Amino acid sequence: MNSDLFQTLQQLIGASHVRPGAESAAQLTDKQGSYVGQALAVVRPADTDEVAAVVRACVAHRAPIVVQGGNTGLMGAATPDASGRSVLLLLDRLNRVRQIDTDNDTLTVEAGCILQNIQEVAREAGRLFPLSLGAEGSCTIGGNLGTNAGGTAVLRYGNTRELTLGLEVVTAEGEIWHGLRGLRKDNTGYDLRDLYIGSEGTLGIITAATLKLFPLPKAQSTAFLAFDSLTQAVSFLSHARAGFGASLTAFELLTADCLALLREQFPEGPQPFSNAAQPWFALLELSDNHSEAHARQAFEDVLGSAFEEGLLADALIAESLAQSEALWLLRENMSDAQKRAGRNMKHDISIPISRIVEFVEHTDAMLQQHFPGVRNFTFGHLGDGNLHYNVAHPLDSTVEAHMTRYSELSQRVHDSAHAHGGSISAEHGIGQRKLSMLPRYKSAVELDLMSRVKQALDPLNLLNPGKVLASVESRSTAP
Amino acid sequence: MNSDLFQTLQQLIGASHVRPGAESAAQLTDKQGSYVGQALAVVRPADTDEVAAVVRACVAHRAPIVVQGGNTGLMGAATPDASGRSVLLLLDRLNRVRQIDTDNDTLTVEAGCILQNIQEVAREAGRLFPLSLGAEGSCTIGGNLGTNAGGTAVLRYGNTRELTLGLEVVTAEGEIWHGLRGLRKDNTGYDLRDLYIGSEGTLGIITAATLKLFPLPKAQSTAFLAFDSLTQAVSFLSHARAGFGASLTAFELLTADCLALLREQFPEGPQPFSNAAQPWFALLELSDNHSEAHARQAFEDVLGSAFEEGLLADALIAESLAQSEALWLLRENMSDAQKRAGRNMKHDISIPISRIVEFVEHTDAMLQQHFPGVRNFTFGHLGDGNLHYNVAHPLDSTVEAHMTRYSELSQRVHDSAHAHGGSISAEHGIGQRKLSMLPRYKSAVELDLMSRVKQALDPLNLLNPGKVLASVESRSTAP
Repeated sequence: MNSDLFQTLQQLIGASHVRPGAESAAQLTDKQGSYVGQALAVVRPADTDEVAAVVRACVAHRAPIVVQGGNTGLMGAATPDASGRSVLLLLDRLNRVRQIDTDNDTLTVEAGCILQNIQEVAREAGRLFPLSLGAEGSCTIGGNLGTNAGGTAVLRYGNTRELTLGLEVVTAEGEIWHGLRGLRKDNTGYDLRDLYIGSEGTLGIITAATLKLFPLPKAQSTAFLAFDSLTQAVSFLSHARAGFGASLTAFELLTADCLALLREQFPEGPQPFSNAAQPWFALLELSDNHSEAHARQAFEDVLGSAFEEGLLADALIAESLAQSEALWLLRENMSDAQKRAGRNMKHDISIPISRIVEFVEHTDAMLQQHFPGVRNFTFGHLGDGNLHYNVAHPLDSTVEAHMTRYSELSQRVHDSAHAHGGSISAEHGIGQRKLSMLPRYKSAVELDLMSRVKQALDPLNLLNPGKVLASVESRSTAP
Repeated sequence: MNSDLFQTLQQLIGASHVRPGAESAAQLTDKQGSYVGQALAVVRPADTDEVAAVVRACVAHRAPIVVQGGNTGLMGAATPDASGRSVLLLLDRLNRVRQIDTDNDTLTVEAGCILQNIQEVAREAGRLFPLSLGAEGSCTIGGNLGTNAGGTAVLRYGNTRELTLGLEVVTAEGEIWHGLRGLRKDNTGYDLRDLYIGSEGTLGIITAATLKLFPLPKAQSTAFLAFDSLTQAVSFLSHARAGFGASLTAFELLTADCLALLREQFPEGPQPFSNAAQPWFALLELSDNHSEAHARQAFEDVLGSAFEEGLLADALIAESLAQSEALWLLRENMSDAQKRAGRNMKHDISIPISRIVEFVEHTDAMLQQHFPGVRNFTFGHLGDGNLHYNVAHPLDSTVEAHMTRYSELSQRVHDSAHAHGGSISAEHGIGQRKLSMLPRYKSAVELDLMSRVKQALDPLNLLNPGKVLASVESRSTAP
């Protein structure tokens, strides 16, 4: 039966686009090398009709279907299980820009388009597509949609969800939902769009999307700020939001320890505030619709009043595009700096901004009590309440010894995030990695609602099984 | 059994809060008087636990449940059917502000809070809750959420959906989903929030919401603009979006005929451009984070360059708050002006902005061909592509004769909107009024997906039956 399916797939989309799983090691391992799966076949359909045909063939053979974009996800959502029964669907051939409509400020692209290419297409048309994240050079918009990706521009423009107007989706039965609408307002029934976004390929296969475009800012200014405390940084953020309004497009937090790690791992890189005594820093970006001079004036007004009100310890304003890029490089290098220093325990959490100080103080202290000597490298998108609360090994111990306690330590961090009104996955999703954690933090009512939706849209449980929801239980419909 | 249910409800929430439907005529008729229903009981629970208890009792008796907020909806969604079996749930006693968190910029309110009161609570805390629409003095946030209400600030701040972070919902089984999260990022499973928003009480009962707050603008400026053509108005809008960015908070279109109607029906009201020859006008609002002077400068820059580029025929800038309010009054009086002039055929449609000119020209001409002499009163939220495309009777005929052809004319308007990539309901929802129209414009695939979601979350079809979806059909789960 499985070899039947393999042949059927080859007939449907061409033999050269259907390969045995055993020949596709790179696609069967996730980016971190944490998950390794098997697949009956790795298939590369050419277009939406071929995706639908592949799904129908898989349904007929009851073969699970796993979709993969740029394979840059962090939760193992795009890696099939070890059964070898799955068909791994690569959407890289669905890479067309279908339409750009500058009067409507929309862009319709296929799921396999790489995020950076989409940004460039928009820019060439004099528009901004604001989604921006570390993996943008290789991640695809399909993956961004599947995980509702966040990144550095959420503060102003929202997550991928808020940037999307319409979708084209292949359903679990291999039908096509043509929902590529370019409308800002459309109240004609249930919001299927937002149900598919963030569902990590478990409810349907997103094949194309109509995205929102924005005016290109006329000027951007960047500053690197130093704070005497996290409390001060949070107060400054509130001040900056009021003063800059929608012009505030990024506010990225880093600790002094993060800066020290960057200096250590990238000695050739920028080193602002290298002798500063402050414990907290932030990268601030302002986008202006008027001019450089206007942006500069707004900067001086808001930073000036912040100094007067004691909301800021020190500030370094980039004087050129090169300086601005150097400051951004600090933030962008954080991921690699950690990698060079050895593995650490990563936590992608969000907390209401009003409770972030309390969360950090409580959790830092709690960790020292239970795991003496661990080192916090906390950074992230403070403007969205999203911290990458990462924890490295004690200097008197080893990475290996530290990592054996990953789940124990993580549970304490996640418990603390939850207790502070937060989320255990701000922007990375659930995938396989956080699957077993969900029931600890979501009510039975919510998990049941999710299961019902899954059963309704994928009754055979063929779409990315074992991701997001551990098991889809049957439920009596009678109360 | 019905009298059993009535008594059970009285025991659950107190006899004085459960009245026979026959004693509640005002709640059984919609705002326009288009729909009249019956109810076994009209109940006013005190809190979420009582809502859940009422739902469980209704489930036990298989009684349909219809929720009503301010009863200002236009689609008959809050009016029960004529069977007299329904329980009509009024949420006006759920009117507490549960929390305001200015550091997190969130506000948690119960479903029965009146929109205007929510705006005021935010303003008193130095924040803006931007949702704004004609019925704000009597509509409730529960109704706004149920219909994903739009209004005049969508251009900048989005629909009710985009203003909502978390929900508390009573499910069809009378369980409570505690989803009141105040997080900007939370990717931990399916987006139940957006599924409930806009579902018009057919999937669950929203009892509370956590809403986003924004900084209060420091200054607002208003202008009334005249255009030589709709094409010019659309080009100006694009220019204004680039020039003002997120400071552009309203762009409301009116035709010369709308202005003439306003002069006729409100002779004491403001009369800008009363001798102008231009056919199209717009009300523009700019919100500034800096100062009055700054707003004025931005106005002069953008309007000045628009004049130079031929994107604007004339402009009247409000010189005072009183003048600004007078200009807004024009837009706000449009609904009453039409009412005074006699009933007309209303169409709440949206079109991609790039196709609005083509839509209006085509549809205006098509109507004259099929319904000679009808008069268009087109106005609305051009910035969102949302037109209120209303059609009044020919002057040589009567309102009554005209209204007999409502469904025939509307179908042609909706066909045209659909053919131009548009929606037949931009912000008013489906309710009862547009129920039978939906299958003409939505694919069988989409309607089937909606039906499955409905069956999954309300398997007994007790929540607002006969709204949004005409019938919920059973479907084999095997492909």
